[in-house]
Amino acid sequence: MTTRSYERVERTVATINDVLNVINVLTWDARVHMPAAGAGARAEQLATLTTIAKGHLTNPALAADVARAQTELGADATLVQRRTLAAVREAVSHHERIPDDLTERLARAKGTAQQAWVEARRDDDFGTFAPHLARMLDLKREVASYTAPDRPVYDALLHEYEPGMTASALRTLFERLKATLGPLVAAIAETGAPRAEVLRQQFDVSRQRAFALGIAERFGYDLRRGRLDEAPHPFEISFSTNDVRITTRYDPAFLGQSVFATWHEAGHGIYEQYADPAYARSALSSDLIGLYAVSGTSYGTHESQSRLWENLVGRSRAFWDVHYGELVYAFPGQLQDVDVETFYRAINTVTPSPIRVEADEVTYHLHVILRFELEVALLDGSLGVDDLPGAWDEAMQATLGLRPRNDREGVLQDIHWSAGLVGAFPTYTIGTVMASQFFAAALRNAPGIQSDLARGEYSSLLGWLREHVYRHARLHGADELLRNATGSDLDPSAFLEYVTNKYGALYDV
Amino acid sequence: MTTRSYERVERTVATINDVLNVINVLTWDARVHMPAAGAGARAEQLATLTTIAKGHLTNPALAADVARAQTELGADATLVQRRTLAAVREAVSHHERIPDDLTERLARAKGTAQQAWVEARRDDDFGTFAPHLARMLDLKREVASYTAPDRPVYDALLHEYEPGMTASALRTLFERLKATLGPLVAAIAETGAPRAEVLRQQFDVSRQRAFALGIAERFGYDLRRGRLDEAPHPFEISFSTNDVRITTRYDPAFLGQSVFATWHEAGHGIYEQYADPAYARSALSSDLIGLYAVSGTSYGTHESQSRLWENLVGRSRAFWDVHYGELVYAFPGQLQDVDVETFYRAINTVTPSPIRVEADEVTYHLHVILRFELEVALLDGSLGVDDLPGAWDEAMQATLGLRPRNDREGVLQDIHWSAGLVGAFPTYTIGTVMASQFFAAALRNAPGIQSDLARGEYSSLLGWLREHVYRHARLHGADELLRNATGSDLDPSAFLEYVTNKYGALYDV
Repeated sequence: MTTRSYERVERTVATINDVLNVINVLTWDARVHMPAAGAGARAEQLATLTTIAKGHLTNPALAADVARAQTELGADATLVQRRTLAAVREAVSHHERIPDDLTERLARAKGTAQQAWVEARRDDDFGTFAPHLARMLDLKREVASYTAPDRPVYDALLHEYEPGMTASALRTLFERLKATLGPLVAAIAETGAPRAEVLRQQFDVSRQRAFALGIAERFGYDLRRGRLDEAPHPFEISFSTNDVRITTRYDPAFLGQSVFATWHEAGHGIYEQYADPAYARSALSSDLIGLYAVSGTSYGTHESQSRLWENLVGRSRAFWDVHYGELVYAFPGQLQDVDVETFYRAINTVTPSPIRVEADEVTYHLHVILRFELEVALLDGSLGVDDLPGAWDEAMQATLGLRPRNDREGVLQDIHWSAGLVGAFPTYTIGTVMASQFFAAALRNAPGIQSDLARGEYSSLLGWLREHVYRHARLHGADELLRNATGSDLDPSAFLEYVTNKYGALYDV
Repeated sequence: MTTRSYERVERTVATINDVLNVINVLTWDARVHMPAAGAGARAEQLATLTTIAKGHLTNPALAADVARAQTELGADATLVQRRTLAAVREAVSHHERIPDDLTERLARAKGTAQQAWVEARRDDDFGTFAPHLARMLDLKREVASYTAPDRPVYDALLHEYEPGMTASALRTLFERLKATLGPLVAAIAETGAPRAEVLRQQFDVSRQRAFALGIAERFGYDLRRGRLDEAPHPFEISFSTNDVRITTRYDPAFLGQSVFATWHEAGHGIYEQYADPAYARSALSSDLIGLYAVSGTSYGTHESQSRLWENLVGRSRAFWDVHYGELVYAFPGQLQDVDVETFYRAINTVTPSPIRVEADEVTYHLHVILRFELEVALLDGSLGVDDLPGAWDEAMQATLGLRPRNDREGVLQDIHWSAGLVGAFPTYTIGTVMASQFFAAALRNAPGIQSDLARGEYSSLLGWLREHVYRHARLHGADELLRNATGSDLDPSAFLEYVTNKYGALYDV
């Protein structure tokens, strides 16, 4: 059943969802095509649309309709209705609590902090960025004081990206990861230098594109409802389930860049493309707290699908046993004398390096944990902003055994903090952990998948993920989705088993 | 001076202008990049933004502020303030008069009529389009009955594209044009077949692009604030004066396509790029009646600039005397044995043909006049929709001496009517007439321009147009702008002198 007030809620959410999808179009265009001179007007347009979306959300008529619909539907409410009303109610409360002037100060601080970060990174000068970071942390603390005055600051911020997750749960998770990954990295380091030279040759960019995109399509990324463009920082973004775009970047002298970035983004894209079309323009395809149109149910869940297709499938031996011939066919001059074993080792080299985005499957999470620990310390005041570069370098030394040569390849490497993304890094590792859980459950529950993968047939894996993950969009929170699909809560066992087995075999450790 | 209520008007208009510019981004993306499957969601997004823009415009608070500002500013109002208040007041009154359900019915009819037109044209079946056209004409009549109940229907519709213009003024203009162009076309037809074979060879598309764009930049189109993409139907669209995009299409077997389309759209783009930046986000860069973000002051004025750069400059003998060598350098195999005189004649062939968009500078206007006369007859009821194809073919025979082979190359060739653009065709000819007036005034007032053009130097012409046309954006209506710049009202003398001299010499008639 439905009621007039519930229908009014649906209509308002549809308007908000349209506006959020339009914001995504503006974002895509700004990153892919916009001439630099257009940035000023684009910022105004984005601010105007955000104000419009927020205005619809905090209009008292919406809150009144939500309350009325709740009473009218009562126990007859369907799961979709309950989840819709809960999501709208929570978002209304979140946005109502934040004073308008704080929203404005935060928006302005993001603009100036990102600019300051770009310049500080260029000049390798943390000092000019420090006051902006301090200000951003103050503002994020202030936001948390309004949105969740009863919760620790870190938990309040984390909640925007990974609802329900807490710093204390993360600490437990990260301790388990460190206990295995630390020794594994150390053991691998002792086996000698990795061999990835085969990836560092000249590879024609249009052939890189054709190969990477052809595989992405076989995974399930539907080009009739998407497109692949080039962008300096690869990303995925959707304007509806029928228009989900991905981007990649090409390095003509390195094969390891475009191919894996394409599959990573295609994994994100597949999640969006296979959300139930019935949820179009609804709260189940809108992050109403983050004011972002997306069908994935949390940052971590989204990342689980990009990592699943990129790593668990795209960096597996089974995958390359099937597809390596196609790659050699595309690049005979570069690869005809390289056997699949050598290539497989090259794309799975493990090396401590200072840069997170270039890190391998094993060391990557040590980068995330380092950031998490520093974020927590910055927010609770036990670490001052001025002491951050030193703390960063020491943590690097302690976890990865190296010191950044400068702040540019150290504390200044990521855009996140300057963009107001404080508490978001852990979702990368959460996603990786989830990816292994989903993948293991799929193989366990549908035994045909393994043999299908071994012959380059991806539809059974895609089918399982559609059924258990993609179609639900935001109907379930990440916890519930994971439990329904895998029978477990977030648990690093599957991931640790995967890396231990895979890299143990590869490096004989 | 300013007042609080005037500032509130400015802020509301800034919001509306942002939304209209965002609609332009969505339109550009839909025509250039969007996968076809994205069309459904995009239509919803466009409808939502249009509703939002209209909602801001018809909010009673805006009308109240306009009235208050008018009283407060009184005789102290600047020209900008007066024009702003007048434009907002007229738009509010326009949109308030149209009932919401009519807006919705019209929007829906546009969607279905365009689809029906696409199919009818594909199948060469006017019968399936006829009821949609009849319905569209009814709806446009209904709109006119609300927006201008005291004016003839055609004048009310025309006013949306060319404010102040009337059917009766057009009839006078068109009679003068016909009296010269008809005999000129007939005389040219007797001189024998045109010679344009040199354009019909294989021309590498990337070289076409480089040549066309290089010239557009020399005209003044600023690529730092724009970009050129490919689209099946070339168009120009702007998101701010700092982001003005143009598109073209390429025919590898015909040089006459991409080059002139690029300069045509660059002419539109130059108009937008050189509007006074002080008018950004204001009523002076918004068509608040058409709900379209644009700095050009009318459809005709805009078209005057595309035609000026494409034809008066780009198809002139002076231009090719300077630049033909560059073209031969780009296409030596195709053109090294073709002299500039032969090439100049090829790009200026005059031939009656059934298709408007392929027509030359002389016959083009006979296509427009034919459409105008049929539109008037359809709207006043003297011509029924079912009799339209016959009337079309007869008019073609009478004015151009040919009969379309079918409705696809006859009455079904243009998208305009199905898109609700009834009364818009005349602006193409108005623009052409204005172009010759502006160009003649520039040469008359700034004698250095002629010799600059003769050596491929366009900055003095651009400078004159910036000063007298572009910078003003929508501060003056088309009439006033034309009078200020040229000293005359709309007058076809300059255009008729131009075509008579140019084509008289070319064809010796």
